[in-house]
Amino acid sequence: MHKGGWRTRDKSAAMAPIGLIHTPFKRAEGTPIHGIAGAHAEGVVEVFPDLIEGLRDLEGFDRLWLIYLFDRASEVRLLVRPYLDTTERGVFATRSPVRPNHIGMSVVRRLHIEQNCLYIAGVDMLDGTPLLDIKPYVSAFDSFQKSSAGWLNGRSASEVLADDRFELGKADSK
Amino acid sequence: MHKGGWRTRDKSAAMAPIGLIHTPFKRAEGTPIHGIAGAHAEGVVEVFPDLIEGLRDLEGFDRLWLIYLFDRASEVRLLVRPYLDTTERGVFATRSPVRPNHIGMSVVRRLHIEQNCLYIAGVDMLDGTPLLDIKPYVSAFDSFQKSSAGWLNGRSASEVLADDRFELGKADSK
Repeated sequence: MHKGGWRTRDKSAAMAPIGLIHTPFKRAEGTPIHGIAGAHAEGVVEVFPDLIEGLRDLEGFDRLWLIYLFDRASEVRLLVRPYLDTTERGVFATRSPVRPNHIGMSVVRRLHIEQNCLYIAGVDMLDGTPLLDIKPYVSAFDSFQKSSAGWLNGRSASEVLADDRFELGKADSK
Repeated sequence: MHKGGWRTRDKSAAMAPIGLIHTPFKRAEGTPIHGIAGAHAEGVVEVFPDLIEGLRDLEGFDRLWLIYLFDRASEVRLLVRPYLDTTERGVFATRSPVRPNHIGMSVVRRLHIEQNCLYIAGVDMLDGTPLLDIKPYVSAFDSFQKSSAGWLNGRSASEVLADDRFELGKADSK
C-alpha cells in the first residue's frame, strides 16, 4: 500500500506558483471565456528564473497547456449557470472557476521564448494569474476531434465574453 | 490591483482531493505511460459523496479530463529523461511526474456513471491516485490535430510501459 491519507478532504497538497501569466485582461468582465475566443489575445508567461532549466525543449511545441490558479475566485459552488447556458450545470461539467480546487487549464499557442518568458497567443486568463504548471500539447495524447460535448454540443464560445458573475471581492480586483 | 503575494514561491494554494482514482496499476513499473496506451484499461473515479451534485450533466460527455496528484513522486527535477527518449528534456516539455507541482492530467473515456462513481477507460494513473478536478473534454476547446509536438514528433507512446524511474520511496509504494 502506498502512503495513505487521501481518503478525505482533510489532507491537502500545497501548490506554489512557478510563475505568473501576464495578459491584457485586468478583470473578468470582457475577458474571453475561452482561448478560442481570445485567439488573437497575446500574453507573456513569466516563469520564475530558478526554474528556467525546465523550459528546455519547449520551442518545438506549437501549443502548450497552462495549468493555473483561479486566484480571484475563492467561492466554491457545485451547481453553476455557465456563460454558454441559461440552466444550472454540475460544476465538473463546466470550466467555471468556482470549483472545489481552483485549477484552470488552457491551451495557448507558443509564439516565441526568450529566457524565462514565453510569448503566447490565445490567452483567456486574468492578468497576474499564478501559473502552476506547463505541459506540452501533444495531438496524439490530447486531440479527439469527435467527442460529444454534452450540453455544450453546438454552442459556440467564440463570440462570448465573460461578465463578473464568478469574480469575488471586486474591490480587490480593480 | 488584485490581492498579490504570488510573485514568489513562498505563497501556496492548498489542494484537497475531491475523490480517488481506482485503476489496475499498483505501481509505476508496467503502467501505460499514457492513456492512449492504456486505452482498454478501465478504472473507477470515486468522487467523495458530498460533491456528488457537481457531477450533474457529465453523462453527455464522451471524454473527461482528470486532474490529479502524482502522490508517489515527491522529487522535483528540472531536467528528465522521459520514457520516449534517451536524452534529457526540460521537465515542462514532458509529462513526467517529477515537476515542481505534482499535477497530472489525462483524458479518459466515460463509460457510465453511477451515483458518485464514474466508470472510465483509458487510465494511465496509479491505483489510489488523489483526484483534484474533473473537467469536460470539449473538442472545440481542446482538440488541435496538427500541432507540432517538438521532440515527441513521430514517437509512439502506444507500446511503451513505464518503469520505476520516477517512483520514489518504493518501500512505501508496494
